[in-house]
Amino acid sequence: MDYYREHRNEFLEGLKAWLRIASISTLPEYAAQVRRAAEFARDALADAGLERAELIEGTGHPLVYAEWLGAPGKPTLLLYGHYDVQPPDPLEEWKSPPFEPEVREENIYARGASDDKGQTWILIKAVEGWLKTQRRLPVNVRFLIEGEEESGGGHISAYVASHPPRLAADAAVICDTEMFAPGLPTICVGLRGIVYAEIEVEGATHDLHSGVYGGVAPNPLQAVAEILCALKDRDGRIRIPGFLDRVRPPSPKEKEAWQRLPFDEQHYREKELGVSQLTGEPGYSVFERLWARPTFEVHGIRGGFTGEGAKTVIPARAVAKVSMRLVADQKPEEAAEQLRRSVAEVCPRGVKAEVRILHSAGPSLVDPENPLVKAAA
Amino acid sequence: MDYYREHRNEFLEGLKAWLRIASISTLPEYAAQVRRAAEFARDALADAGLERAELIEGTGHPLVYAEWLGAPGKPTLLLYGHYDVQPPDPLEEWKSPPFEPEVREENIYARGASDDKGQTWILIKAVEGWLKTQRRLPVNVRFLIEGEEESGGGHISAYVASHPPRLAADAAVICDTEMFAPGLPTICVGLRGIVYAEIEVEGATHDLHSGVYGGVAPNPLQAVAEILCALKDRDGRIRIPGFLDRVRPPSPKEKEAWQRLPFDEQHYREKELGVSQLTGEPGYSVFERLWARPTFEVHGIRGGFTGEGAKTVIPARAVAKVSMRLVADQKPEEAAEQLRRSVAEVCPRGVKAEVRILHSAGPSLVDPENPLVKAAA
Repeated sequence: MDYYREHRNEFLEGLKAWLRIASISTLPEYAAQVRRAAEFARDALADAGLERAELIEGTGHPLVYAEWLGAPGKPTLLLYGHYDVQPPDPLEEWKSPPFEPEVREENIYARGASDDKGQTWILIKAVEGWLKTQRRLPVNVRFLIEGEEESGGGHISAYVASHPPRLAADAAVICDTEMFAPGLPTICVGLRGIVYAEIEVEGATHDLHSGVYGGVAPNPLQAVAEILCALKDRDGRIRIPGFLDRVRPPSPKEKEAWQRLPFDEQHYREKELGVSQLTGEPGYSVFERLWARPTFEVHGIRGGFTGEGAKTVIPARAVAKVSMRLVADQKPEEAAEQLRRSVAEVCPRGVKAEVRILHSAGPSLVDPENPLVKAAA
Repeated sequence: MDYYREHRNEFLEGLKAWLRIASISTLPEYAAQVRRAAEFARDALADAGLERAELIEGTGHPLVYAEWLGAPGKPTLLLYGHYDVQPPDPLEEWKSPPFEPEVREENIYARGASDDKGQTWILIKAVEGWLKTQRRLPVNVRFLIEGEEESGGGHISAYVASHPPRLAADAAVICDTEMFAPGLPTICVGLRGIVYAEIEVEGATHDLHSGVYGGVAPNPLQAVAEILCALKDRDGRIRIPGFLDRVRPPSPKEKEAWQRLPFDEQHYREKELGVSQLTGEPGYSVFERLWARPTFEVHGIRGGFTGEGAKTVIPARAVAKVSMRLVADQKPEEAAEQLRRSVAEVCPRGVKAEVRILHSAGPSLVDPENPLVKAAA
């Protein structure tokens, strides 16, 4: 541990230098900075003592790879992180500039500090400490750091799908999740999947004046409200037939572990969310609702008039943007189909409803009893 | 009738000249044209043989007044119209330019042709025909034509409220409604009132990521949907307690008269609205739902994300714009209060809801058996 203490300041300055690079992957005008951030990661991996540190070119932003395979017979870990960041707007919400890292009360503030340069940096420096002081690691490691996590991840998807031998590993570690509480290292064993969809409702062929047609014309906005309420009841129970059938309940061990987490519901409710009451399905704890139960949420409703003042239009169409978060063992294609069928069933008279899936991803869950998870814990 | 036949073309050219004046009252840059349209109306009234034709100045656009009171002992009619028009956008929807009147298949197309220069012009020319051929009218008339009908009507409201003697009349005729069908002169004896409101729902103090908080965070958009569904059921029945109590049912005579109207529901549904099915309260005819029953409609829902693609925000707040159309004998203040109470009652847990009234107006209904209405019929 001395190595880490001695180099603490140098590590911090290194992270700050990385954070200063505005590697906003979704904005083409930042492409040069994105590449600089990739090269910075590659150089840091090489300096840490890893081998074959290099950029993997392809469509989009480069992947960064490095390895140390000097422990034959020992497990191999594939370590994932990303060096790109999201756009920092709205800028007026920042207390210090997003690409000028600032330490305030033991926290470092900059775009990418916690998503995901900070975590990735810790992994690199952890490996560096072993290699500089012991000349070896207890396991084999391969780093794969991408630059498109915030903009689609096309490059890494194609690369992983082709199964190059250099990705062979016994476990993959993703350092892109949160710590549950300050000072509480956290192993996240599951991630919810998603189905993101638009529900489009069509009424008349053109917008109508509610003074002339109100009373007989179907209102697509009201129809959207009716569909949303039919899909999820006032208690937060999702009413899509079959949707909950595959949901795998958490094991008694998991539930017990969750109970040991330091959690003050009142503080969470009042300080983190600022609401009078939490919602969600009755009969499930907060963590079950957050981590082990699927969700159905509406994210926006388009249609009609939303400007200042009053306009009495009955719009010809309305669109709701919704997502379903999936847990193990739900399947995105099946959930999408259940949504489609369910919307068709509950669609009010006089309107037509269509479901368009914008994107989806499966849930992932690793058994907490997995020996590698236990070894890490 | 000869006078009208002989001057048909001249009347049409006069209307066209009036329609060419872009009297868009809501846009300040059109103020000069609005005034020209007022002067045009004043001159037309004077040319028709009316007396005291003049502009009444005040805040906003001028009123136009003229009178003929040469029939002592006979009833006096107050004739209302407006010379201003709405902005013509979107321009690409016009087949001919909005301020270049064009006659196509016996209809005249221009902004203001049917709202309201066309109707007002007919009244002026009707009076002109009598005065030019008979030197007298069978009744006394006063014209009051405003220029702010499409932009709030502040001037006429203040003027009428001060009850100047020149407005004294036995009946007021408003020529700003529709003919039920081509060739079917229509006396409209009622107008629905309105309460226009915003329902604002607040959840957390800030937008939340549905991946992190979905399952426990209240969703104001879903809450808005729940409120809308609680206020009006799937069959179109308004569920606001007390809201329907005062509604005056149409008389058997009215209902019988409605049944005699030429109306093809299938054509109306398919060609005018383009919907598979009309909606609204069960147990009431189309005309009852349109003319004698109040409505509750949602016109827009603001909150969250409605752009292209996907964003999984749970918004901190959402706003629904809604209106209630009122019929006799409902009162706007009472209906607003009922809405307020009802929203408070049905507001889901975890969120706060507030009702803001943007504007309101009372319904009006004249007894169709009124002798002046019967005389006109």
